[in-house]
Amino acid sequence: MKKEFEFINWLRSQKINHTTNLIAGIGDDAAIFSPSVNQETLISTDLLAEDIHFKLDFTSPDLLGYKTLAVNLSDIAAMGGQARYFLLSIACPKNLPDRFLTELLSGMLTLAETTEVTLIGGDTSASTNKLFLNITILGECPSGKAIRRSGAKAGDEIYLTGQIGGSALGLELLQQGKRITDKSLTNLEKLALFAHLKPQPRLNFGKALGLENIATSMIDISDGLSSDLGHICQESNVGATIDLTLLPIFPSASLNQALNGGEDYELLFTVASKHSAKLREVSKLFPDLPVTKIGTITSNLDRWLIEGERKTPLLAKGYDHFA
Amino acid sequence: MKKEFEFINWLRSQKINHTTNLIAGIGDDAAIFSPSVNQETLISTDLLAEDIHFKLDFTSPDLLGYKTLAVNLSDIAAMGGQARYFLLSIACPKNLPDRFLTELLSGMLTLAETTEVTLIGGDTSASTNKLFLNITILGECPSGKAIRRSGAKAGDEIYLTGQIGGSALGLELLQQGKRITDKSLTNLEKLALFAHLKPQPRLNFGKALGLENIATSMIDISDGLSSDLGHICQESNVGATIDLTLLPIFPSASLNQALNGGEDYELLFTVASKHSAKLREVSKLFPDLPVTKIGTITSNLDRWLIEGERKTPLLAKGYDHFA
Repeated sequence: MKKEFEFINWLRSQKINHTTNLIAGIGDDAAIFSPSVNQETLISTDLLAEDIHFKLDFTSPDLLGYKTLAVNLSDIAAMGGQARYFLLSIACPKNLPDRFLTELLSGMLTLAETTEVTLIGGDTSASTNKLFLNITILGECPSGKAIRRSGAKAGDEIYLTGQIGGSALGLELLQQGKRITDKSLTNLEKLALFAHLKPQPRLNFGKALGLENIATSMIDISDGLSSDLGHICQESNVGATIDLTLLPIFPSASLNQALNGGEDYELLFTVASKHSAKLREVSKLFPDLPVTKIGTITSNLDRWLIEGERKTPLLAKGYDHFA
Repeated sequence: MKKEFEFINWLRSQKINHTTNLIAGIGDDAAIFSPSVNQETLISTDLLAEDIHFKLDFTSPDLLGYKTLAVNLSDIAAMGGQARYFLLSIACPKNLPDRFLTELLSGMLTLAETTEVTLIGGDTSASTNKLFLNITILGECPSGKAIRRSGAKAGDEIYLTGQIGGSALGLELLQQGKRITDKSLTNLEKLALFAHLKPQPRLNFGKALGLENIATSMIDISDGLSSDLGHICQESNVGATIDLTLLPIFPSASLNQALNGGEDYELLFTVASKHSAKLREVSKLFPDLPVTKIGTITSNLDRWLIEGERKTPLLAKGYDHFA
């Protein structure tokens, strides 16, 4: 393993800076930046623990680095913000090979490059046996324009980007022994594995939605649609009806994977029906990203899954770390 | 263990907010705040890993919570800033008792209260066997006034707050089996244990120094005087001479503990000699905090420890996690 200060110096030597507002990045007691004028700061943090969030045997160091940043970026996307900076904490067991950290950082910095976020600080530590990664992500949005979970109103239409269930299906394939390096994978298997190992944060779409000012609430699908819709409903004090026949389920994923699997990092959001034409305009800017209407917000606090005449309660069954 | 969302709801119910600039704290995809006018944002992160940075057997949950926040606040102090917000990530093994997290948070929020910092976000996760804590701390300082490591000039006087070596001595006592609950502790042993388990971040002094604009560089003693002075010298491209006879060493701590022990969280800073009178004025505002001149910055890049006629190289021997 490289010595701590050698590793930090290697990071500093990368000298990637996507902003003119950064005054000091890595290398002092704290990083320093000037907030942009008329912008609010968004900040969020996400921890990934070995054998809880990931298994080293299922992924590669560069994909793990990519995903660790991606899931954090997704939180800024879910606010309709522009991602700016991140800080990385690593607790690293001594038995990992020398190249592990540089490969992990390489995957992370590849995504940082395309999303124009700058690594401005962090902490490095030994770990007794497991790898822990924590990122804090910072973003900005015009004052008062952040899209929160709490603004959904009865009658709003509920939308979802992309497909759900692919990540959970990918995880199931990994647990069955499939690996991205397997030559015999079908295209669908490959897509499912990548949905799990290399999720795509919907930053540009989220930001475009923020600029249009039409979403009344938004969240990213990390815990699973059932739980994340629950968060919006609880924070907004509303209920919801989801139409099963409209759900954009990843091909061959199960309904359980789609509803409760989580880690899809798609955006779930609500729009007043009078703004549905505006939403279609925004959507046209992203021809590769399907945006699907999946249901309606109700004043009644219950959450229902409907399929024609059938109506079943949509219970939050996402992952609970402390359960 | 409380369920994850119950725990988060408990945190939200604490509703402690020390600022008028916070728009949304815990409970959305990201927290939102308005940066203050004409201020720069300071941000830093510190990870504490079980059996690397702390042993549960040596401390109590509330002291551990206190220290985790204290070491982060110390980084804002070392920039001469005002601490504002923090985010907390916890990876928690399932075998910890129910009350562990609430006691940890209670110790942390006690310090948050007295230092007027607000918990605005975080992440909770299970852990396979060890406890991991990560805090990201945010602060502010007037634009251009942050005290960095890189401004020390030849001829500047080197100062230190408080005493050093107490934390390392406290750790040694813990390793020998002493505990803060022991009835037979001497006063000095008690002070050393608390120096290690409950360090005091020098926020008010650091901020006062920042407002006076007289410190040319500053760092907090986390790795040890030898290493932290090395950071200032390297960033400032200077050397230093430290007078051993002037060092404010904690009573009965060894010279090695004072120079290389680390975790004292005192402030090490440099001031041009023409500003020494101004420094005394600042110092008078903190009658309980000794501020000691310990040496001089030199244009020669070497770092020396002198004691009368004797002169020995002062090598950086602080802790390296990856060594």
